[in-house]
Amino acid sequence: MTRRTVAEYRRHVAQLLSALDSLPAETVELDAALGRLLAVDVTAPMDLPQFRNSQMDGYAVDAASIAAVPVELPVLQTVAAGDAGPAAFASGTAVKVMTGAPVPPGADCVVPVEDTTTSGDRVTVTRSRSVGEFVREPGTDVRTGERLLSAGVLLAPRHVAVLAAVGVRTVEVRRRPRAAVITTGAELVAAGTALQPGQIYDSNGIALATSLRANGVDVTSVSRSSDDVAEFRELLTAAIEDADVVFTSGGVSMGDFEVVKDALTPLGGEFGHVAMQPGGPQGSTVVDGVPVLSFPGNPVSTLVSFEVFARPLLRRAAGLPDLAGYEVRLAASLTSVPDRQQFLRGRKVDDTVELVSGPGSHLVAGMALADVLIDIPAEVTVLEAGAHVQVQEL
Amino acid sequence: MTRRTVAEYRRHVAQLLSALDSLPAETVELDAALGRLLAVDVTAPMDLPQFRNSQMDGYAVDAASIAAVPVELPVLQTVAAGDAGPAAFASGTAVKVMTGAPVPPGADCVVPVEDTTTSGDRVTVTRSRSVGEFVREPGTDVRTGERLLSAGVLLAPRHVAVLAAVGVRTVEVRRRPRAAVITTGAELVAAGTALQPGQIYDSNGIALATSLRANGVDVTSVSRSSDDVAEFRELLTAAIEDADVVFTSGGVSMGDFEVVKDALTPLGGEFGHVAMQPGGPQGSTVVDGVPVLSFPGNPVSTLVSFEVFARPLLRRAAGLPDLAGYEVRLAASLTSVPDRQQFLRGRKVDDTVELVSGPGSHLVAGMALADVLIDIPAEVTVLEAGAHVQVQEL
Repeated sequence: MTRRTVAEYRRHVAQLLSALDSLPAETVELDAALGRLLAVDVTAPMDLPQFRNSQMDGYAVDAASIAAVPVELPVLQTVAAGDAGPAAFASGTAVKVMTGAPVPPGADCVVPVEDTTTSGDRVTVTRSRSVGEFVREPGTDVRTGERLLSAGVLLAPRHVAVLAAVGVRTVEVRRRPRAAVITTGAELVAAGTALQPGQIYDSNGIALATSLRANGVDVTSVSRSSDDVAEFRELLTAAIEDADVVFTSGGVSMGDFEVVKDALTPLGGEFGHVAMQPGGPQGSTVVDGVPVLSFPGNPVSTLVSFEVFARPLLRRAAGLPDLAGYEVRLAASLTSVPDRQQFLRGRKVDDTVELVSGPGSHLVAGMALADVLIDIPAEVTVLEAGAHVQVQEL
Repeated sequence: MTRRTVAEYRRHVAQLLSALDSLPAETVELDAALGRLLAVDVTAPMDLPQFRNSQMDGYAVDAASIAAVPVELPVLQTVAAGDAGPAAFASGTAVKVMTGAPVPPGADCVVPVEDTTTSGDRVTVTRSRSVGEFVREPGTDVRTGERLLSAGVLLAPRHVAVLAAVGVRTVEVRRRPRAAVITTGAELVAAGTALQPGQIYDSNGIALATSLRANGVDVTSVSRSSDDVAEFRELLTAAIEDADVVFTSGGVSMGDFEVVKDALTPLGGEFGHVAMQPGGPQGSTVVDGVPVLSFPGNPVSTLVSFEVFARPLLRRAAGLPDLAGYEVRLAASLTSVPDRQQFLRGRKVDDTVELVSGPGSHLVAGMALADVLIDIPAEVTVLEAGAHVQVQEL
């Protein structure tokens, strides 16, 4: 792989992960459908409302019989919501109906209870109403066979509500992207173990796993490899079993023990340099049809690589809107390395952005203080305070 | 309860739910901490980096010994990341170090491998470096005892990453708000059951449950009550056991069978009218110290009540940023009821908003087409196309 620009490598990765845009559908229970991407159009299996019902607590009457008010009418019956409805109705009578209760055939409007007084089994109506007032006719919200929701909708509570209202119990949604994570490096140990000289705690495993989950991806496995190629290959074989994409960290650079590069180059992996900082060394391989993206192992390099190359594609696959990118002014001047696109860690302060960390790719505590990445083009080496820069929300 | 404005009832609900802003802390495993609100400041239990290490794959040397280049130096040893470090170093020699490997005491800079050539156990350095170059000193990212993260941070992958990097395994986070849902109405049946005349499918249960989950709330129970007061009270007693707040739907209006109102008025519940549409009838009660918010039962009324009264408070309690509200122009003219603040269902189209549904509070399919609520003040009855309106994202 020759040296690529960030834009070139983004296109390369987009091509590599293009299968994520056509993940198969799966069926989920409606109460597990929140936040999922609807895979098919859903048509209404029934009318809404299904039956003629009252919009108010009041009296179902014949509008003609209350044209002159006040008028006293006999109350035949009281119908609650949930009742099957009255057996009979005649013009010049009233049926007391609760909100949602069936309106008897023949009654053509409902007088709200506020516009009535009652005495025994008789009601006095004090305000006239027109035909149709406060009566909900069947199918006026949606008719059987009409499209209720379109494929591609990200299911929110209001979508789940209408599906429940028509009695839907399961729904076809796009399967979530599935990803596996393998971190590498003999120096890595799990939290809970005392550090021996030269060791560090593995933070990339959980950083990638939570980054994936935060962007709508199911994490199928997180494993850690030493610098042994056979061990890495064994973990990779397990990882690709049930993943759409595998992310690795570390082992891609210029050292003597680059396990990822050594394991994947024979499988056709491309390892080289992207003109960016942090995150320069990058690798990509397709193993048994599964794309493997190999990020460098410094914690900030791993996180920035994920943000720049993976996050937008994964969010699109999961049906999530991408995070905002926008222009903002620099709070103070800065310098940047030549010939490399730099992603500096920044924090918004009022309507400006300030640096919260040096450029070093090991500065993970500095990264935690950031809320944006400041994107400095490769050809820019100096920016004055007040200069406009592009930032990407984290 | 007298007739209240939306603003007045919002304040009432905010007061009722004020305990949600001081939920107790709980301890969670780090890999379950994503999206949780950090309850306490976290200080660094160790330096980062913990030991002096190399920023590059290269050769650790004494800068003085490479002041004139090219210069050939003997290579004493190769140190990988994870190795304990070399036993010895002397000025005028070199130790090959990988990125992250310990830099031996005495060596004061690292020459990147790109600036060297090797022959057997000797290296020729072709470029001078200053003291400190490519050496990461202990504590330069964060020092033991320094604040790593502040209470109130919503934990994102980059925060989890730094906690993992210092070996943290569990973290104190604010407990999520816990809510129970009770829907009411003899007309409600569960999906999967054939509808009898007069019956409808219960959509409010899942609508409220998913609305709660979508806003960072743990749903402790969802139950359904008939119009029987004793049954409702029994469900309520169970619901308040483990909930910070209970939401009910239905049974709060002017009918003969208002189970929520009938059950809660004797317990001090306030039931009355808020000057809004949909969502006018509202009730609130405190039962054994637990606030119970009672929304009207029409599906759109329930969803809009949640959005207007509950969502902002629940998101704040969960540490989530609130959804955006902003001004936009109307695509077409509209009329609104007098003396009631109206929340119409709208959809953004380019830089305008259009209505997607009539005002009826039963139009749940119409609600599903909306992406915003259009907030029409109580005193406004007519708006022309192009008028600016306030909208609230759903």
